[in-house]
Amino acid sequence: MSYKQIIYTTAPTAAIDPSLTSGTFRVKTLQKPQNVPSDKLLVRAHYLSLDPAMRQWLTAKRSYIAPVEIGAVMRGQSIAQVISVGTDLSSKFQPGDWVVAYSGWTEYAILSAKEVEKVVVPPGGRPTDAMSVLGMTGLTAYFGMMEVGKPKAGETVVVSGAAGATGSIAGQIAKIQGAKRVIGLAGSKDKCEFLVKELGFDAAINYKDPDWKKQLKDATPEYIDVFFDNTGGEILDACLARAAKDARFAICGAISQYNSAKPQGPTSFMTVISQRVTMKGFIVFDYAKKYSAALQDLGSWLAQGKLKRKEHIVKGGIEGAPQALVDLYKGANTGKMMVEVAPVSEALPVKAKL
Amino acid sequence: MSYKQIIYTTAPTAAIDPSLTSGTFRVKTLQKPQNVPSDKLLVRAHYLSLDPAMRQWLTAKRSYIAPVEIGAVMRGQSIAQVISVGTDLSSKFQPGDWVVAYSGWTEYAILSAKEVEKVVVPPGGRPTDAMSVLGMTGLTAYFGMMEVGKPKAGETVVVSGAAGATGSIAGQIAKIQGAKRVIGLAGSKDKCEFLVKELGFDAAINYKDPDWKKQLKDATPEYIDVFFDNTGGEILDACLARAAKDARFAICGAISQYNSAKPQGPTSFMTVISQRVTMKGFIVFDYAKKYSAALQDLGSWLAQGKLKRKEHIVKGGIEGAPQALVDLYKGANTGKMMVEVAPVSEALPVKAKL
Repeated sequence: MSYKQIIYTTAPTAAIDPSLTSGTFRVKTLQKPQNVPSDKLLVRAHYLSLDPAMRQWLTAKRSYIAPVEIGAVMRGQSIAQVISVGTDLSSKFQPGDWVVAYSGWTEYAILSAKEVEKVVVPPGGRPTDAMSVLGMTGLTAYFGMMEVGKPKAGETVVVSGAAGATGSIAGQIAKIQGAKRVIGLAGSKDKCEFLVKELGFDAAINYKDPDWKKQLKDATPEYIDVFFDNTGGEILDACLARAAKDARFAICGAISQYNSAKPQGPTSFMTVISQRVTMKGFIVFDYAKKYSAALQDLGSWLAQGKLKRKEHIVKGGIEGAPQALVDLYKGANTGKMMVEVAPVSEALPVKAKL
Repeated sequence: MSYKQIIYTTAPTAAIDPSLTSGTFRVKTLQKPQNVPSDKLLVRAHYLSLDPAMRQWLTAKRSYIAPVEIGAVMRGQSIAQVISVGTDLSSKFQPGDWVVAYSGWTEYAILSAKEVEKVVVPPGGRPTDAMSVLGMTGLTAYFGMMEVGKPKAGETVVVSGAAGATGSIAGQIAKIQGAKRVIGLAGSKDKCEFLVKELGFDAAINYKDPDWKKQLKDATPEYIDVFFDNTGGEILDACLARAAKDARFAICGAISQYNSAKPQGPTSFMTVISQRVTMKGFIVFDYAKKYSAALQDLGSWLAQGKLKRKEHIVKGGIEGAPQALVDLYKGANTGKMMVEVAPVSEALPVKAKL
């Protein structure tokens, strides 16, 4: 029996090219392994996580992580199920266990215990939560807001890419923290409605409206105390121009610039001085020691209904991942974008704990 | 007897125009007041402080301070001497006292007690120190380095505008704090020599050299932990590209951009995320509660010879101030730039303390 992987083949100069014959990636077909080494697991990926950071992983610049090598399986997390367990690991894992796997874009993978984290699906929860609201995405929103943005009661918070996986959680956390006014910037009327009606944002602005800067000004009469930025570019600039004194700008991402051969920084930079703005870039990995406390907060907010999450699942199998990634940069998603490699209905039944 | 003031007349669109007939400022001649109100002082300015921030004070944008109004005396500090004292203030001041005065650009001014601060000239000191190393300039360097940059032993610190009033102090403070490597960026070979030979910087780079970026790279083999920025623009960009993980960028000024109709921010902004850089703008006024402790440090470093200061005095009277300000933006100065309105030789003798 064979399975597929998506291999990173050609470095993009600007946007990713999703063609599997002439583009950034190729499909590779392999034979499914018969035997699992004694210290490994065989896992089957069900859902691949698609993340804005991925474009940066394909750029051979100094960054927080080494770039993916040409010829390697595309890097990424998945929600996977354990299929077979090497003899040394049989006390820790059993077939049917759900794991978050550092598998990359592959249908099957042989991994060490270090490359997976077991997922305990709470009642009412979904295995995919461990990759979104209770995974790296939720943690990124959590630390960006709690450790960098630090909204105080009564403050005004703006989130860009607010209907995305991280932004949607970040805005809700600001509200939970007592922010007076949480405003989301997103790229469609539907997304804006979702933010206000379903997630409880105080306002949402479609940055594709011709008068969005005026809307932003009107929505921030007391200026912006905290800006959680996923987009960079013109939106960052507009928010800098509205920065309150001592504002904190948590720089999480700059999706508007990732595909640009010549990225653009903020031009209304003088405000950084005049309003004493702190702009701080952050990477979730730096807070690893605080993950478990953060997950407790996120889990209890989720259980209490204070935090809502949304998934945007692209069906049709692993070969759709490159196109889905391109669509992510176009803003096709509301909530966490993932590719369904195999539906949950095909999963092994989860065995009772021994 | 008459005296002169420099009046802000025409808002500049880009650079300040120093012409006193058709430019940004005009001379106004007034009669010297005969009587001093009982709650006021008559002071005579000897030295005007010229500061890069002045260009921003002429811009009607939201800032940390209201812009100077058209028709008003140009704003600025001076080192002045008390000439006459109103009866209510005679227990606090006497003729001959040196003061830092919020006088603006005027030869004489009638001020309230709140608008002056008495200067105690220490043995070996100069009255003008209270406007430079022991005044706003030194305090700006101090808080930018100690509260924002926070260099630790072993770290690499870069200062732009390093031969200027603030930069030259900032770099020396970094060295006093135990920085392993302090590198100055300046605009001439002479300035670079001054930084290394007289102030003890470990290296200095002339940003007008064609290969200055390569020199910067070579001088920062362990990247940049702290950047104290006075210039903005291309220099900020080059330093961002060399930022170490968790670097602190203290944004003090952006002199390269002040005269620009369309200021430019950093373009290598992605590094802010990948290296978790903190960029923080600051204004010295925010640290007012800590001034006296800071001045103790600065004063003792100065007395111990750990801190050296340099003055760049433009002679020829108050009418030279507009041209001197234009020259400041061209980088004509090494050290604190000031305009001599009246030499110390014309000052009243300082009376002994009662």
